[in-house]
Amino acid sequence: MSRYFTSALAALEPYTPGEQPQDRRYIKLNTNESPYPAGPQVVKAVNADEVRDLRLYSDPTCTGLVNAIAARYGVKPTQVMPGNGSDEVLSFAVRAFCDEQTPLAYADITYGFYGVWAKLWGVPDRVIPLREDFTLNVEDYLGLGATVVIANPNAPTGLALKPAQIERLLQADPDHVVIVDEAYVDFGAESCVPLVDRYPNLLVVQTFSKSRNLAGARLGFAIGSEELIADLNRVKFSYNPYNINRLTLLAGTAAMEDEAYFEECTGKVRASRQWTAQALKKLGFTVLDSSTNFLFAASSRMEGGALYRALKQEGILVRHFDAPRISNYLRITIGTQQEMETLIAALEKLGA
Amino acid sequence: MSRYFTSALAALEPYTPGEQPQDRRYIKLNTNESPYPAGPQVVKAVNADEVRDLRLYSDPTCTGLVNAIAARYGVKPTQVMPGNGSDEVLSFAVRAFCDEQTPLAYADITYGFYGVWAKLWGVPDRVIPLREDFTLNVEDYLGLGATVVIANPNAPTGLALKPAQIERLLQADPDHVVIVDEAYVDFGAESCVPLVDRYPNLLVVQTFSKSRNLAGARLGFAIGSEELIADLNRVKFSYNPYNINRLTLLAGTAAMEDEAYFEECTGKVRASRQWTAQALKKLGFTVLDSSTNFLFAASSRMEGGALYRALKQEGILVRHFDAPRISNYLRITIGTQQEMETLIAALEKLGA
Repeated sequence: MSRYFTSALAALEPYTPGEQPQDRRYIKLNTNESPYPAGPQVVKAVNADEVRDLRLYSDPTCTGLVNAIAARYGVKPTQVMPGNGSDEVLSFAVRAFCDEQTPLAYADITYGFYGVWAKLWGVPDRVIPLREDFTLNVEDYLGLGATVVIANPNAPTGLALKPAQIERLLQADPDHVVIVDEAYVDFGAESCVPLVDRYPNLLVVQTFSKSRNLAGARLGFAIGSEELIADLNRVKFSYNPYNINRLTLLAGTAAMEDEAYFEECTGKVRASRQWTAQALKKLGFTVLDSSTNFLFAASSRMEGGALYRALKQEGILVRHFDAPRISNYLRITIGTQQEMETLIAALEKLGA
Repeated sequence: MSRYFTSALAALEPYTPGEQPQDRRYIKLNTNESPYPAGPQVVKAVNADEVRDLRLYSDPTCTGLVNAIAARYGVKPTQVMPGNGSDEVLSFAVRAFCDEQTPLAYADITYGFYGVWAKLWGVPDRVIPLREDFTLNVEDYLGLGATVVIANPNAPTGLALKPAQIERLLQADPDHVVIVDEAYVDFGAESCVPLVDRYPNLLVVQTFSKSRNLAGARLGFAIGSEELIADLNRVKFSYNPYNINRLTLLAGTAAMEDEAYFEECTGKVRASRQWTAQALKKLGFTVLDSSTNFLFAASSRMEGGALYRALKQEGILVRHFDAPRISNYLRITIGTQQEMETLIAALEKLGA
């Protein structure tokens, strides 16, 4: 860093996103994108007239999109706040609900960004280890005096908690916000959205990146009590009021309203996930139960890093985390059925 | 705010963007957008195939766009960092280059967001009054021990400094960063970009919102020394690595490469600005010299707030700031020639 960079951030370790290599075409199973294109209604919504209208600022209140999300989830528009990816929404929540006295608590094995945002916003954090089997014990979070963020289902494990388990935490610590990051919830877990009207301290965050085929549009949203959403809007309007561009607003609205395409795509991913999990187990892999669009799996014959590299040689990208407890595992995004069959064939060839 | 909101931000006053009323169609001269559509190359670039590909994340390194900006301005790609609007780029700069020991210094009359970001990131600020005639005296900024941000040309005044005046500051305080916000530079002021290779403490920020007809795409960028740009990337990769969506990357690249359309649009705005300034002076308005796509003007017959409201009744939106020293002025965006003629006719009718 330069001599001008604030020493307050000297210890900041930026998040490392999954690799996006440009050297050759890979079967990309490394960043949990949808293998299916943005839907036909999205293509229709983002037309040439709308592109010409990019001359005008986007709607800072995101009214059309907010209404579509509210209608889909049965909440009031004032209970919804979208952002430039769920990353931005989560970052705003860390800013709004944490400070010197209120650390951010999260699991040792989870989305790697939570701790980065805590450092970026200058708030302390508390890292709580998962159990040996990678399940999260809600009891560990009671009485911490912290804002808690739980990825549910968790990444990269794919394991899900029941809403009733999270409810235990919401009840036990009504003075602190619980953020439930439901990036992967649409692939088979139960959402906490139905709880928002009962718990003013619950904030649920979702994304259009996975189940709605719009990773490249950058769109996520929070659902919570009107008070929490107003707080997030205070941060948003102090950071970047026009945080979502016009075309993403249109794309997101169209995607949210196209329930049939959503069902079709998430259904295909679930079917391919089941097929892939069985095939991996037949090869002798340890495969965690997944409620997501990826599998977290370890070969009984090859070490995680070596297998990641061997697959890359074969033109298949998966994600490997060189981190304690999980370095033997690979996080494998569910692609098309054909891509998953190619993956299994490659693993057989490699003797994994 | 809710009882969960951090008390650290209790004093935060969010920025108020220009109104975007939905009740009727206005001649919109209030948010400094371009009156001309996004260019034909942009429309071509944002096609249906690209919309379908929104399933994939955007390139976190923004390579295509960065190369286009670097080529246009004659700098290295490593000297360029784009963001989700210049707002985000400026916000990152406040985070990177300010802290408890290094306040953010800016003018009393300038872009209203600078002070908001200082509060959001928890850094102190220093507000330095402009001279009585709204010009900025660079001498006031020497030896402050602060990171300085100067909008050049300034908003809402429209007045510009010469790069040599800013150079005086860069030389006098080599230990602190000077951020030059050139949102409006393409309408007639001189850019500081040619100075970046001589001053490692200079960061120039520009936007696609005005001169490149893409306010709704949300795109801005910084140009500076490689070290400062690396610092900004540290913040970006700790906040939101995929901060720019795929379609905006394409739109921005196409707009940056279409020099002819850029010249055509900015030329028309300058011509209409000249016409409008003369017409306003003929009506008895005080009109500041503008190097931007707006005019800052005060009627000799009607108070600013009253005139703003009267124009809104007539279907014309302009921006009025109810703030000390400037409450008698209106900031009038330059629209099409026809829109400006309608404005002048309305002012005549109102007796302003």
